[in-house]
Amino acid sequence: MQRRITLKDVAQAVGVHVSTVSRALDPKTRHLITPDVARRILSASESLGYRQNAAAYSLRTNRTRAIGVVLPDITNPIFPPLIRGVEDALAAHDYVAILANTDSDMQREESISETLRARGVDGLILASVEREDDATARLSQEGVSIVTVNRKVDDPGVSSVVHDDDDGIRKILDHLFSLGHRDIAKIAGPRSLSTGDDRYRAFQRHRATLGLDGGPALVAFAENFNEAEGERCAGELLSAGARFTAVVCANDRLAIGAIAAFRERGLACPQNISVTGYNDMPMVDRLHPPLTTIRIQQYRAGFAAAELLHAMLQTVPDLRRPQHVLLPVELVVRGSAQPVQPDSRS
Amino acid sequence: MQRRITLKDVAQAVGVHVSTVSRALDPKTRHLITPDVARRILSASESLGYRQNAAAYSLRTNRTRAIGVVLPDITNPIFPPLIRGVEDALAAHDYVAILANTDSDMQREESISETLRARGVDGLILASVEREDDATARLSQEGVSIVTVNRKVDDPGVSSVVHDDDDGIRKILDHLFSLGHRDIAKIAGPRSLSTGDDRYRAFQRHRATLGLDGGPALVAFAENFNEAEGERCAGELLSAGARFTAVVCANDRLAIGAIAAFRERGLACPQNISVTGYNDMPMVDRLHPPLTTIRIQQYRAGFAAAELLHAMLQTVPDLRRPQHVLLPVELVVRGSAQPVQPDSRS
Repeated sequence: MQRRITLKDVAQAVGVHVSTVSRALDPKTRHLITPDVARRILSASESLGYRQNAAAYSLRTNRTRAIGVVLPDITNPIFPPLIRGVEDALAAHDYVAILANTDSDMQREESISETLRARGVDGLILASVEREDDATARLSQEGVSIVTVNRKVDDPGVSSVVHDDDDGIRKILDHLFSLGHRDIAKIAGPRSLSTGDDRYRAFQRHRATLGLDGGPALVAFAENFNEAEGERCAGELLSAGARFTAVVCANDRLAIGAIAAFRERGLACPQNISVTGYNDMPMVDRLHPPLTTIRIQQYRAGFAAAELLHAMLQTVPDLRRPQHVLLPVELVVRGSAQPVQPDSRS
Repeated sequence: MQRRITLKDVAQAVGVHVSTVSRALDPKTRHLITPDVARRILSASESLGYRQNAAAYSLRTNRTRAIGVVLPDITNPIFPPLIRGVEDALAAHDYVAILANTDSDMQREESISETLRARGVDGLILASVEREDDATARLSQEGVSIVTVNRKVDDPGVSSVVHDDDDGIRKILDHLFSLGHRDIAKIAGPRSLSTGDDRYRAFQRHRATLGLDGGPALVAFAENFNEAEGERCAGELLSAGARFTAVVCANDRLAIGAIAAFRERGLACPQNISVTGYNDMPMVDRLHPPLTTIRIQQYRAGFAAAELLHAMLQTVPDLRRPQHVLLPVELVVRGSAQPVQPDSRS
């Protein structure tokens, strides 16, 4: 790029000292100089194309106005709307986001957080945390401002913005119950993640509320929230040999995998087995069958996380209290769950 | 965040001058001081947790090691893999990406590019350009390093990384021809975008090569590359009243919309009409019918754009020549295009 126009260039053009230019350009100190000089400086600054130097600002204030955003993988379709929300909220405060992907590798998460910190981001938004997350705990103890989003750590000292998973699973179970299902299996997510654990515990709790806990729960645990694990877990449920007419999956990708695996074994969804997802990610309304699922608000979650982090950065560190935001979710009824049939699989 | 540990803190701890610390920490100048002092400085630097200050580096070198990446909308599923490629390439060079979305609003693109420039990014990767793009032309003339990706501007002076759309459309037409289709319509993208225009011109050229240009081409132009425009254009093609047995769509989203619109009018894909997409975005293999399409390489495109921009930044500006990278594409045969049927729509 071309050489940057500096305060010094503006000062030389107007014939004043650099510090006078600096005062004139800051609305908070402009009253310290005469209106005529201020006007000439602003005019010269405009015509020369002076722009505040972000690096100089950063050195002066020890603020970079950049936030690190750490995700498992941006190509997972639930994250782009979240990032969009983060960016829109930050832009309003003249902050930017620097993204990094961990590929769900906790060592990589640690090294990425360190790299971002070394670069001088003002805070971190982490969508990649595990419930027991040493790197996050350490950064938080060292005074780094952190908000986790979509997932949370068990330590309540780290602020979070997550969805009301307990209510989401309750809505799914109520819906299946109203369709006549009583033998309901579950493909759960990894319990090392708050989303996996919260949805699993909600399943157990609300099964009991509905009086469905007479027998042992038929649950398969996925190691990842993806289609391949959905397929594997569907096979595991069938091999167990117990009767079930519906499967509650901990996310949409597990549901997509499960439906494919059932179909391969001659079991059609929803005719033979009802299957539900979670997240309402893009395109699941166009699948065959379209997926009954829980709609989370990833844009709003990203926006809220960025707003929360920005508020934390404006506050005296000692006055900060961790905050936990719980966003509401919505049941989206489509075709993958239907009334239980007399000829359903038993 | 906590106060940052500076070179001065390390110097005080060891009892040497700041410039000595600076020399000890840079492998290129370490030999200028005695090994014993160097060892004590490195040890103190480690135990105090000193990290290079990115802002100080930036002021010294007038480099921020940050690249601006401007997209239409990160929630469009073709962009996340592209961003992933950009980030992976940049990370290897210790650069980071700062993202911004234009929502396909050219005024917004201009203000975003200005904001990023004011912030001091070293260069720009633009996935949002139109063929005639005043803002991009001006930035380029002012010496800003720019690479466009996925799309290009008409001005050959701006470097680009795009896909071989001519070959992609040729592959699609050859495939439909081999299935017996002779009456092939087209839902084209906006001609203000290089992707829309290139794919449209390729369609006309290869129709002629196959000898299918006896009659007028049945073409509907979409105003956006989305499902709603695919639906509208499908209706437009049907209203025209001419015979066609297949439709080549300029991207997957147009194809998805077209298939839905045909279905609403009682025309099944592929039984009555074959429909093809372009991009092979996530999930189109799980649609009903799964989409026959062209696979582009968005990760590789993002990676190549970042590598190209990085190389440009390392070179003396006057020696820079614009470069244009053309990535190969692949035909992916699935279910949405089938051999032409005797009972096909006429």
